[in-house]
Amino acid sequence: MHGTNPLIEKLPGFAGGTIDRVDHIRTNPAKLAEAFADPAARLLVLDGLEPVEVNGHLLLEPLAADADVADHVLLGIDPAGQPIFARLVADLGPNLVPTPRSRAIAGLVPAAEVALYGTARSLVHWHARHRFCSVCGGPTQPVKAGWSRRCDLCAAEHFPRTDPVVIMLAEYRGRVLVGRQHAWPQGRYSALAGFVEPGETIEEAVSRELFEEAGIRVRDVRYVMSQPWPFPSSLMIACIAQADDDALTLDPTEIEDAFWCDADAVRAALAEEPGAPFLAPPTMAVAWHLFDRWLAGVAPSDASA
Amino acid sequence: MHGTNPLIEKLPGFAGGTIDRVDHIRTNPAKLAEAFADPAARLLVLDGLEPVEVNGHLLLEPLAADADVADHVLLGIDPAGQPIFARLVADLGPNLVPTPRSRAIAGLVPAAEVALYGTARSLVHWHARHRFCSVCGGPTQPVKAGWSRRCDLCAAEHFPRTDPVVIMLAEYRGRVLVGRQHAWPQGRYSALAGFVEPGETIEEAVSRELFEEAGIRVRDVRYVMSQPWPFPSSLMIACIAQADDDALTLDPTEIEDAFWCDADAVRAALAEEPGAPFLAPPTMAVAWHLFDRWLAGVAPSDASA
Repeated sequence: MHGTNPLIEKLPGFAGGTIDRVDHIRTNPAKLAEAFADPAARLLVLDGLEPVEVNGHLLLEPLAADADVADHVLLGIDPAGQPIFARLVADLGPNLVPTPRSRAIAGLVPAAEVALYGTARSLVHWHARHRFCSVCGGPTQPVKAGWSRRCDLCAAEHFPRTDPVVIMLAEYRGRVLVGRQHAWPQGRYSALAGFVEPGETIEEAVSRELFEEAGIRVRDVRYVMSQPWPFPSSLMIACIAQADDDALTLDPTEIEDAFWCDADAVRAALAEEPGAPFLAPPTMAVAWHLFDRWLAGVAPSDASA
Repeated sequence: MHGTNPLIEKLPGFAGGTIDRVDHIRTNPAKLAEAFADPAARLLVLDGLEPVEVNGHLLLEPLAADADVADHVLLGIDPAGQPIFARLVADLGPNLVPTPRSRAIAGLVPAAEVALYGTARSLVHWHARHRFCSVCGGPTQPVKAGWSRRCDLCAAEHFPRTDPVVIMLAEYRGRVLVGRQHAWPQGRYSALAGFVEPGETIEEAVSRELFEEAGIRVRDVRYVMSQPWPFPSSLMIACIAQADDDALTLDPTEIEDAFWCDADAVRAALAEEPGAPFLAPPTMAVAWHLFDRWLAGVAPSDASA
């Protein structure tokens, strides 16, 4: 599916959206009604939270004649001028865990459609899980074209959440730390990751997570790139940090195994070579791109294959 | 309060925490009880959401004899080995808007204590606003030492939220864009800012916000630094982007005024010179540091005063 050429995949999955989010329409009921009534308006069809792909594109359908704008989120206006909506559902049932099908969408449709699906998935999931007010327990209703919900009882307004997550490589003398979680596919290793908590910077979260999970102290945390991750709604913030030494103390509840890996080994893993020491994450994951960027920044003497 | 020396203030307010968040204790009831019973354990006293400062430090008190660990969040263990707790309150009343007193704490106590207060404020606020389950409306209870809440009825688990916000300078030919919101103090201008939405990267959010608020298109978004902002719980992500041109189309609902500003003008503003063209944000704001970093990166020919 991909080679060693770092130019093949420039963006991780779910990045690269091209829709105009038209913030000014969300709060303007007349303009919203106009967009909903536009003959060009389309429904992004989802099966629960799953994408529906037909002939290499996401399925878009005209809005039903009896559709109610109040049951929809306006994702935005696409480059062809079509207002794109997604339908809100009250109950997703057990359909909350990402399936192989939803993850695989990144390889089946153009990047901008993957991003559109990610946005829709996060929002539809958020609405289904926020039908009640966390302040008073009252029922809430979608407002602002589906970009917030308001409580019927206490009028509290609630906004879609996006959880920042740090995902990082610790580097020590030309090698980076790769680890695996218990539930991952056999042989898969990747960058370590964890949620940013209230009261800390990105850099502090990177340091804390690497110490908690692997027992290493780091400095010089550098931001590399970011990615929206719609399972259900994270913002992946990818970084590289310099470790003070390479002694590991793994947290067995989080990390099944971890080891230090040189550039040749990482290159072999990204290229899916048979002798590679680990199975790399897919190219849709920001971790793949983090490895790739690290390789691009490795000094030439270390990077020779 | 500060001069033009960029070394005076290395960190924005609320960054620089030194507490060990002891994630392993949160999920271990025996260890949590032990920390709560530790004679060294202290309560970080808050007045509602406000900090309480005594002699240049936050007020820490021994835990009350009848205190219940279930009503507290374990902020962590401080460098002196003291487990530090904050008390959860059911009703904050109208006490939700940050007061001058809570913002001023950044100038009154050491940075690590400012960070501790920020963490506590975000968590106490979050608990008070999440007493009910957003999925089913049932009552929720704090679990995991106050780092999550679980629903009594449907068992859904809810985690403290942290909202990523981009705050950015657009740069064009040696000048940066500064803008002001309607409610700000007279003369105050700062970097533009906005929440990262589901389905977009940090870089995409920067581009979208600058176009929405000022009508400018940008490229080459560079991450600069981050800051936790506890009003109520944001992660400020500071960036600099290159504008394609300097024509402005302001969104009057968001931005009262904006203009392009050269390095001399920004330097004068940060130094609080009488003739400065705008009143800079305080040094506790990440925007101050963003301006400062931008000045540090300006080519010498542009940076001569």
